Amino acid sequence: MMEIKLVKNILDANDRLAEDNKKAFEAAGTTVINMIGSPGSGKTSLILRTIEKLKDKCGIQVIEGDIASSIDAQTIAGKGIDALQINTEGECHLDANMIRQAVRSFELKPGLLFIENVGNLVCPAEFEIGEDFKVTVLSVPEGHDKPYKYPLVFSKSTAVVLTKCDLMPYIDFEMDTFISGIRSLNPNCRLFVVSSKTGEGIDEWASWLEGLRRR
Amino acid sequence: MMEIKLVKNILDANDRLAEDNKKAFEAAGTTVINMIGSPGSGKTSLILRTIEKLKDKCGIQVIEGDIASSIDAQTIAGKGIDALQINTEGECHLDANMIRQAVRSFELKPGLLFIENVGNLVCPAEFEIGEDFKVTVLSVPEGHDKPYKYPLVFSKSTAVVLTKCDLMPYIDFEMDTFISGIRSLNPNCRLFVVSSKTGEGIDEWASWLEGLRRR
Repeated sequence: MMEIKLVKNILDANDRLAEDNKKAFEAAGTTVINMIGSPGSGKTSLILRTIEKLKDKCGIQVIEGDIASSIDAQTIAGKGIDALQINTEGECHLDANMIRQAVRSFELKPGLLFIENVGNLVCPAEFEIGEDFKVTVLSVPEGHDKPYKYPLVFSKSTAVVLTKCDLMPYIDFEMDTFISGIRSLNPNCRLFVVSSKTGEGIDEWASWLEGLRRR
Repeated sequence: MMEIKLVKNILDANDRLAEDNKKAFEAAGTTVINMIGSPGSGKTSLILRTIEKLKDKCGIQVIEGDIASSIDAQTIAGKGIDALQINTEGECHLDANMIRQAVRSFELKPGLLFIENVGNLVCPAEFEIGEDFKVTVLSVPEGHDKPYKYPLVFSKSTAVVLTKCDLMPYIDFEMDTFISGIRSLNPNCRLFVVSSKTGEGIDEWASWLEGLRRR
């Protein structure tokens, strides 16, 4: 019982900090997208492709969450984009307090802020960080059964991006089963099918993001 | 401070239960392999291929850990193998208590017991369940940088199985970088490169497993 209470308190405390973050984002005119997916699902590549499409149209900033290393933030900063690395040092998800601390050392700008969560399809879905939208990033090689096995993240996401669609010819991916799984959890969820390698589907995804901006 | 203490107590309590599980496995002559990898890394397909190779040579049992659904245990039971599904109902990893309860409703047999952990490259590495060996399962599409970003599971594993090697021609996977990452964390770790689709590398992996048996 003790454990359950503590977990509840932690989540309550996290939610309060997330609300504070949200107010800070709103005040700065920043729309925040929490990108959640497994290791290697293609989150960073998708952000890089999106930067190419949108950097001349709106402000873009990126916070990278990783357990270790700063490979991803370095890659993004190399494109001339404000990028901040959070190393969670073992923690399997970002939480609102990490984002609060990160944002203190970061000048929020109007436009889009992508927060790439730790590579994990499970735990990040439980922690609000003050985002406007959660997006699930799943790659074709991970398989069409994932909405059935990891329902929480799909049920909480405003959009699902199915990445690496260039690999579709080499993989038994049942699109109908995948879509039915998402629809049963989250009927209004948007689905984008993209390849960051070939650029397929990126225009549609980028246009949708443009429409999410506050200003 | 309170949180840190509690986490330590939980891990201590888990380790004690894991020791009990280990004794039960030893007494039954069961060698237990804890299979850890992201969603869609190919854990179940690898277990199915391994069953084909070894089922006439030694006893095989499987425990499937998933947050939701019993898709995997049904698939494995369909091959005539003892299979038990654990649904963690939201928990992102298996722990020793879950395994203890599962084993009570399961007649342990001499041979190999594969425990497929929840699809997650992070949290399962922190929880001992009484296994003899941890094996990291990573697929080629997840990328060569994963040992650098998720070091714990690679450092604790006796072997790494790189799956979906049939996709190598379509993906920029730098094998040297991957191997260096593993070696720097875990110099004695075995590496198997396999495709459950084509069968490549499965013989070597299966032979290694055969050598792990207690009797």
